[in-house]
Amino acid sequence: MLNVITLQQAMEIAAQKMNFAPFPAEVLPLDAAAGRILAEDIVSAENVPAFNRSTMDGFALAAKDTFGASGTLPSMLRIAGEIAMGEPASSGVAPGECVKIPTGGMLPPGADAVIPWEYTDTAAELCLCYTSVSPLQNVTRAGDDIAAGQTALQKGSILTPAAVGVLAAMGRPTVKVYRKPRVGILSTGDELVDIGDAPRIGEVRDVNSHLLASLLSSFGCAPVNCGILKDNEAALEAAIRRDASAYDLLLLSGGSSAGDADRTAALIEKLGEVYCHGIAVKPGKPTVLGRVGNTPVFGLPGHPAACFFMANILVKKHLEARFGLRRRTFPLRLPLAEHVSSNHGREELLCVRIENGEAQPVYAKSGVISLLCAADGYITIPRESEGLARGSTVEVTLF
Amino acid sequence: MLNVITLQQAMEIAAQKMNFAPFPAEVLPLDAAAGRILAEDIVSAENVPAFNRSTMDGFALAAKDTFGASGTLPSMLRIAGEIAMGEPASSGVAPGECVKIPTGGMLPPGADAVIPWEYTDTAAELCLCYTSVSPLQNVTRAGDDIAAGQTALQKGSILTPAAVGVLAAMGRPTVKVYRKPRVGILSTGDELVDIGDAPRIGEVRDVNSHLLASLLSSFGCAPVNCGILKDNEAALEAAIRRDASAYDLLLLSGGSSAGDADRTAALIEKLGEVYCHGIAVKPGKPTVLGRVGNTPVFGLPGHPAACFFMANILVKKHLEARFGLRRRTFPLRLPLAEHVSSNHGREELLCVRIENGEAQPVYAKSGVISLLCAADGYITIPRESEGLARGSTVEVTLF
Repeated sequence: MLNVITLQQAMEIAAQKMNFAPFPAEVLPLDAAAGRILAEDIVSAENVPAFNRSTMDGFALAAKDTFGASGTLPSMLRIAGEIAMGEPASSGVAPGECVKIPTGGMLPPGADAVIPWEYTDTAAELCLCYTSVSPLQNVTRAGDDIAAGQTALQKGSILTPAAVGVLAAMGRPTVKVYRKPRVGILSTGDELVDIGDAPRIGEVRDVNSHLLASLLSSFGCAPVNCGILKDNEAALEAAIRRDASAYDLLLLSGGSSAGDADRTAALIEKLGEVYCHGIAVKPGKPTVLGRVGNTPVFGLPGHPAACFFMANILVKKHLEARFGLRRRTFPLRLPLAEHVSSNHGREELLCVRIENGEAQPVYAKSGVISLLCAADGYITIPRESEGLARGSTVEVTLF
Repeated sequence: MLNVITLQQAMEIAAQKMNFAPFPAEVLPLDAAAGRILAEDIVSAENVPAFNRSTMDGFALAAKDTFGASGTLPSMLRIAGEIAMGEPASSGVAPGECVKIPTGGMLPPGADAVIPWEYTDTAAELCLCYTSVSPLQNVTRAGDDIAAGQTALQKGSILTPAAVGVLAAMGRPTVKVYRKPRVGILSTGDELVDIGDAPRIGEVRDVNSHLLASLLSSFGCAPVNCGILKDNEAALEAAIRRDASAYDLLLLSGGSSAGDADRTAALIEKLGEVYCHGIAVKPGKPTVLGRVGNTPVFGLPGHPAACFFMANILVKKHLEARFGLRRRTFPLRLPLAEHVSSNHGREELLCVRIENGEAQPVYAKSGVISLLCAADGYITIPRESEGLARGSTVEVTLF
């Protein structure tokens, strides 16, 4: 049954084989949708801005009326009126005329540029222009920001503050985004007790439920803690069956014993299908990927650090594929602060802390959770590699 | 009244002068506190783990009983029993004895190491050890992760998933975090209409309320949209007075007219105190910093891009100082893809898009919001600089 694959292969399974269906979408008020992922392309129905706007306080005019103007030989135009902010330009500008305009004001017909007031002098109805302006100077044209018919935002984009601003500018008070996937989290292990209970000698607190819930929240999901199950096969089978139909995604976090992954794999195989059982990566070997019905099931290692890494890589990869996420990320490439040896025959994920622009490995014993807080991210040491030399460039993935 | 200062000076005012009091704290269940900022130092009352644990499936023994053991000359120990997961070690290990132990199991008295089962053979009550182990090998000692009395997490730290895991391991079902600051957002301008309304010719939609609400949510605040105020001084004064006492922080986003910052500054001066009126930065010049009572008030520019930049820099800086935020950030240093000129006599913030490992400037006309979506972050061109050469290294701040 043991079918050990590489982390790369496991990532492909998580992204492709387990990608059964897109998540359902919902329509939310714009402000409530911030941070969510767009479930529709946003095509603009109109030009933004809707009209030619001045970018300066000054006078709207026909640029050609200022050609040749200078400090010693100003152009002289008649002030025909004033554009008020938020009001349509009531009348046009005739040759030899200008109108006073505020920043953001609408250019009147006949005007194609704005001269800032700093370059003018006024006397009664006359405006003296001490510089020339070019057509379109100090003007934002209709559609300059977003043109009618343009796809302003693509499905799968995160609604960043800037994207919310674009939707506001387009007049979209509501937007279609993916519903937060509901993720069931089940912890298993005879040694586990709830964090509110005092562990007896030999028992340990259930770290993974909380670690995973926090991580899944940060991935844009709605996690649900389904509790701790003691190592009772019938109860575990019933729980997996129940929770796989209740949630969009099911995460099992095993006990720390080596046999736990085998049992999880056997149960998933019985109830559905196992895609992978064991990954050639350290930490993270006892990881199981499968499905029960159309619910992807991740059997994660019991060791908190291994659980954290596998969820951070595989569950994240799965969610990004399900969402069709468009996110631009930029690797941090830094020199390694010290020599790192690796002779495990498995790909290795190593925590690093960034100090003085270098990636400093953070070593700790198995099962230690506090090191994750001390680390800023991790590097990957390839399976074939016998280690990495000090000063070699490594790619740091930040947590 | 105009007192133009540098962006650096404005950041110091936002962080120090406007830092009147820490935000109030609240005690939340651990899972609900994820992503929040710790309002207390977390000192461990106990050792984590609480007992010496095995990191392997194997046999717990006294390391010295294996010294000299090899494949051809194994040590031979008597199997005195078995440690069950989650159970206290019932009896000790005498010299020449060992007990079967699972990963995570508690080491019994007399044992100081674990030999993995792969290096053993068993026959009836006998265990043959084909390798020697050192004292503490394959053992996590009590307190190895977090020692009793140790400050595991510091006040001002963000509750990342790893930090949540550490608190779970320490048995903290609740935690004291800062309450989400309530931030009032007021838009002003005769030309503004709600995003649900159809703008008439000359009017524009209120982008900044939504941009700011989304941004402030991403900063860990609870924003409240206080609506759009037309340019009516009495109404604006009443609104500032009312909202300054209702919220922890007040953001005014001005109209796009040049006089708006003056009016905002005059009203803040009347009701409280103005610290800065005008910043030598592009975009962002018409920014006002002040207070009404003990509520910090930010008068932000009306242009969405300028508003976005100033909130991203000054409001964020203020919040980080108020929270006493401990966050490690790492600059992205990249070559500039093209020559950039700057002769504005002001510090300049320039949007960039990262392409092929280079920072590519994203130019656009004033007032354009869509460019913020196309950009990955921004660079700063110093005030004294006349520009930056292609290929020179720039520090990119990601949005």
